[in-house]
Amino acid sequence: MSAANLVVAEDDSYLKSDIVQDMIKQLRAIDTFGSYDGWSEARIIDPVVLTKERKQQIPVIGDPDEMTLARVKAYYNSLSSLIEKKSGLMAVPMVNITHEGFGRALIMVGKLIIVDKILRDVHRWGFPSLEKMCEQTDATITKALDLIEKYKSAATD
Amino acid sequence: MSAANLVVAEDDSYLKSDIVQDMIKQLRAIDTFGSYDGWSEARIIDPVVLTKERKQQIPVIGDPDEMTLARVKAYYNSLSSLIEKKSGLMAVPMVNITHEGFGRALIMVGKLIIVDKILRDVHRWGFPSLEKMCEQTDATITKALDLIEKYKSAATD
Repeated sequence: MSAANLVVAEDDSYLKSDIVQDMIKQLRAIDTFGSYDGWSEARIIDPVVLTKERKQQIPVIGDPDEMTLARVKAYYNSLSSLIEKKSGLMAVPMVNITHEGFGRALIMVGKLIIVDKILRDVHRWGFPSLEKMCEQTDATITKALDLIEKYKSAATD
Repeated sequence: MSAANLVVAEDDSYLKSDIVQDMIKQLRAIDTFGSYDGWSEARIIDPVVLTKERKQQIPVIGDPDEMTLARVKAYYNSLSSLIEKKSGLMAVPMVNITHEGFGRALIMVGKLIIVDKILRDVHRWGFPSLEKMCEQTDATITKALDLIEKYKSAATD
């Protein structure tokens, strides 16, 4: 994607948020061929932002492409990592996407499921903006931490 | 596999156990081409029994074959179904096998993980005998029911 088509501004203040920073780290980690070398942070995270126009251009037939799946997994890895930092307990993500882009994402702490998300049309997985991404992530983390608090004994089993 | 090579006897008393009966039902359900038509119960469940000799003949390279994966999933479906009957709570299995036959099988009740099994060398997935299969299954179910009892509130959330 050429720089002209980016929707994330280089000075987007949400680039510095925990979730975006961690996700960029995760994406760089799986970039074994160095495709991202020399890319700005905005450019790496850019495909995660799906505007209405972008969504319309992605067909929901067949299986989602590999990079989209990698991004979904990177996101749940990051989410786990943030929950781990805040709770002090090990959080384990498990993302199961079957054919046609349907699936389920879990994050577990001990014997407790603290994030449980049904995924549909993974082809079009993304957020309307980095701001929305941070908002949703914060809400998910708050809910997860509440669950850990509520069922502490199962979470620490 | 010809009848001569079967290791499960037609009169094996464990053929009537809950887990074996349910698993045969699951396997028949996914047998869309009717390959099992006219097969005895012993013949359908037979590949699940891996004697030492059989194990040695299965290489652990590459990905496990489709039928083995289907059998692993059928087993965890059956296990969930038995736990559901005994606990009266909905049990949801999730089997995630990545490449090379490594993976993880979960069974969830509410927000609680009641079965959590790391799978390795799925190519060679099976039990030494139907008797052992029933024993291990019973032990897993007992443990699962204990966990539900212990963390009832998370299990019913």
